[in-house]
Amino acid sequence: MKIIEKGSIDSVPGFYAAGTKCGIKMGDAPDLAVLLCETACTAAGIFTTNRVKAAPVIYCRNILSRNNDNVRGIVVNSGNANACTGQRGLDDAALVAGEAEELFSLFGESVLVMSTGVIGVPLPVDKIKKGLRQIRKNYPNSSGESFARAIMTTDLQEKCLAVEIEVEGVPVTLGAAAKGSGMIHPNLATMLAFFTTDAAVSPDALSTILRRIAERTFNMVSVDGDQSTNDSVFVLASGSSGAPLISGPESPGFSAFFEAFLEAATILTRKIAADGEGATKLVEIRVVGADTYNSAVQVARTVANSPLVKTALFGADPNWGRIICAAGYSGVPIEPEKVDIYFGKLPAVKKGVAAGTHRDKLSDELRKKEVVLVIDLHQGDQECCFWTCDFSGDYVRINADYCT
Amino acid sequence: MKIIEKGSIDSVPGFYAAGTKCGIKMGDAPDLAVLLCETACTAAGIFTTNRVKAAPVIYCRNILSRNNDNVRGIVVNSGNANACTGQRGLDDAALVAGEAEELFSLFGESVLVMSTGVIGVPLPVDKIKKGLRQIRKNYPNSSGESFARAIMTTDLQEKCLAVEIEVEGVPVTLGAAAKGSGMIHPNLATMLAFFTTDAAVSPDALSTILRRIAERTFNMVSVDGDQSTNDSVFVLASGSSGAPLISGPESPGFSAFFEAFLEAATILTRKIAADGEGATKLVEIRVVGADTYNSAVQVARTVANSPLVKTALFGADPNWGRIICAAGYSGVPIEPEKVDIYFGKLPAVKKGVAAGTHRDKLSDELRKKEVVLVIDLHQGDQECCFWTCDFSGDYVRINADYCT
Repeated sequence: MKIIEKGSIDSVPGFYAAGTKCGIKMGDAPDLAVLLCETACTAAGIFTTNRVKAAPVIYCRNILSRNNDNVRGIVVNSGNANACTGQRGLDDAALVAGEAEELFSLFGESVLVMSTGVIGVPLPVDKIKKGLRQIRKNYPNSSGESFARAIMTTDLQEKCLAVEIEVEGVPVTLGAAAKGSGMIHPNLATMLAFFTTDAAVSPDALSTILRRIAERTFNMVSVDGDQSTNDSVFVLASGSSGAPLISGPESPGFSAFFEAFLEAATILTRKIAADGEGATKLVEIRVVGADTYNSAVQVARTVANSPLVKTALFGADPNWGRIICAAGYSGVPIEPEKVDIYFGKLPAVKKGVAAGTHRDKLSDELRKKEVVLVIDLHQGDQECCFWTCDFSGDYVRINADYCT
Repeated sequence: MKIIEKGSIDSVPGFYAAGTKCGIKMGDAPDLAVLLCETACTAAGIFTTNRVKAAPVIYCRNILSRNNDNVRGIVVNSGNANACTGQRGLDDAALVAGEAEELFSLFGESVLVMSTGVIGVPLPVDKIKKGLRQIRKNYPNSSGESFARAIMTTDLQEKCLAVEIEVEGVPVTLGAAAKGSGMIHPNLATMLAFFTTDAAVSPDALSTILRRIAERTFNMVSVDGDQSTNDSVFVLASGSSGAPLISGPESPGFSAFFEAFLEAATILTRKIAADGEGATKLVEIRVVGADTYNSAVQVARTVANSPLVKTALFGADPNWGRIICAAGYSGVPIEPEKVDIYFGKLPAVKKGVAAGTHRDKLSDELRKKEVVLVIDLHQGDQECCFWTCDFSGDYVRINADYCT
């Protein structure tokens, strides 16, 4: 696998991406993005499990249930989540998709839509339509970077990448763009990720691959434990590379594609965690020696979401008591007297009590920009890797501001 | 029920309380407290469900399983949790109890112990023994206030009260002291509460009453969602009022005692929430119209623990989207299109969409020192009341400081 320098979502031949400012956000930040493919794509999406689902989530699930092999693109706006907007929200999602289909002369129901931003405010469809016409004018000048910037909310950095692999001897490209924790008007830490590829993948295989990969990446990141109404991950596969079709795990080329996809998703996931609101460091939590994989995840997630752990990490406070305590209330029947905890490679806890490493040394480990915490439950052989960030005073500042 | 002005845990005849500084904490803050009764008491305790239990929790559970009708007092230290301290921690807990029993000429296993503070550091038993001798010297000069102050960690205010009721025509007193969220060296937001009474209550009835009351009060408060290794609530009943024995719900006097106890516990719970680390306001979350009581609690707890909700409350940001979003990922199958949300009496959400109340009005409601959020799920007739506080930048400052 080769990482393409300055690669992005449009590094895949046949894909076009652009972003512009259509006026949903105040100020100068771009807020409308379009991704298109010049040929029909197979497509898959996974969506938030929140009971409160934004209109574009409902819209896309419907479309993908009817059409997962002739998708041509996606329109994304930031600044407005189109969530808790009732029937009008669903109508607005369809209006935006329809406008893009008309402007780019595409079949109906071939364009998906996604939104991120403030909840409960009707989508300003007229602004979006105007923005789409602007993008149409500049077509086909593609810029994956401007796409990645237009989907951002409080993200500090655009997140994109592209990799090249070989599938059965044929060069294949995988591109991606994502946004993480963030809000424009204070809102939800919505996570969105978009993948493009010229590999040929059947709709079913694409859906299975995306689900498995998200389980180990996008489902294993938490900035503040809140789950958004809009969280979504999409992948579009054009097949134009000419590589043989991947229709399931038995297909030659499946492994190469899966591994590259997993690595790309892991890189994006780490970028999302590192760019969490007010984050000063990336934290990787590895739970090992668990009875079951789910137990490992439950412990990791509970530790990652503990405000006491996160503030200690911010302060480089080697307060391992908060970590074992969070593991203790995770709901997993851990045996405290068996638990070991490491900060990087330094033992902090051995069999549930202090390991004796000097606190200054432990603290130094927590001062790194990337901190690794290892929690060994000594109850089995299952493990997981989870990513989060620390909790700084900036998190509160960013999130306490008044909406307007 | 009459609230006794400046009442405390020693307002109950026959009870003695004191606090002193024994040197566990740095600085001048007191860190050792003793509660004694001149006669034998029935006693009950409830403890953290965290898998990681501090030594004094394990010690007290053992003692109370053998002796719940001849308890004479309790020793509490702050500054050190005696948690994750292995066998030595258990031995230390017994040493402290034994020292108090000897100094005050009491039977073995008649004194309970509790600790709160930093995890993983051995208890400085010698300092505590010295402090106990100091307290013995000043005996019987009682001060419930000094007890309440010595159990504090980062609490800003001591929390105590006493009430007077009549049980079958006989005056009975109920006293209490509690500590909430807080830490001295940065540590856990341990919640401790102690109740005294001269009512006559059988051990079984006392245990049942305490459990039911905690379910509606101490189990319904959250500052940051972290559950400590030391959380405990105790009650000691001397029976010296001469009121008839309460041995169960059928006893005359049960209701009067239960109601007074519940009200006292509710007052303390609200004080604990209002004095959360960095809190600027008390937040009461009422979930109504739930299918089951547990569903109501689950929604309330999830909303109360959402950092996005808590920072919005700090900023008086009327961002109801964060509230309905948290309800949506609570795990309860809410139906978003049925949900109403009120800020105080102002409708913010009707049937899952904006109710149309001007955001300035909603924001004003959130500026109050006591904020009430009502979430009506319209799925049934069950409801609950939950207390929490907002999340300010001070929370991070308090919790990110380095241990030493």
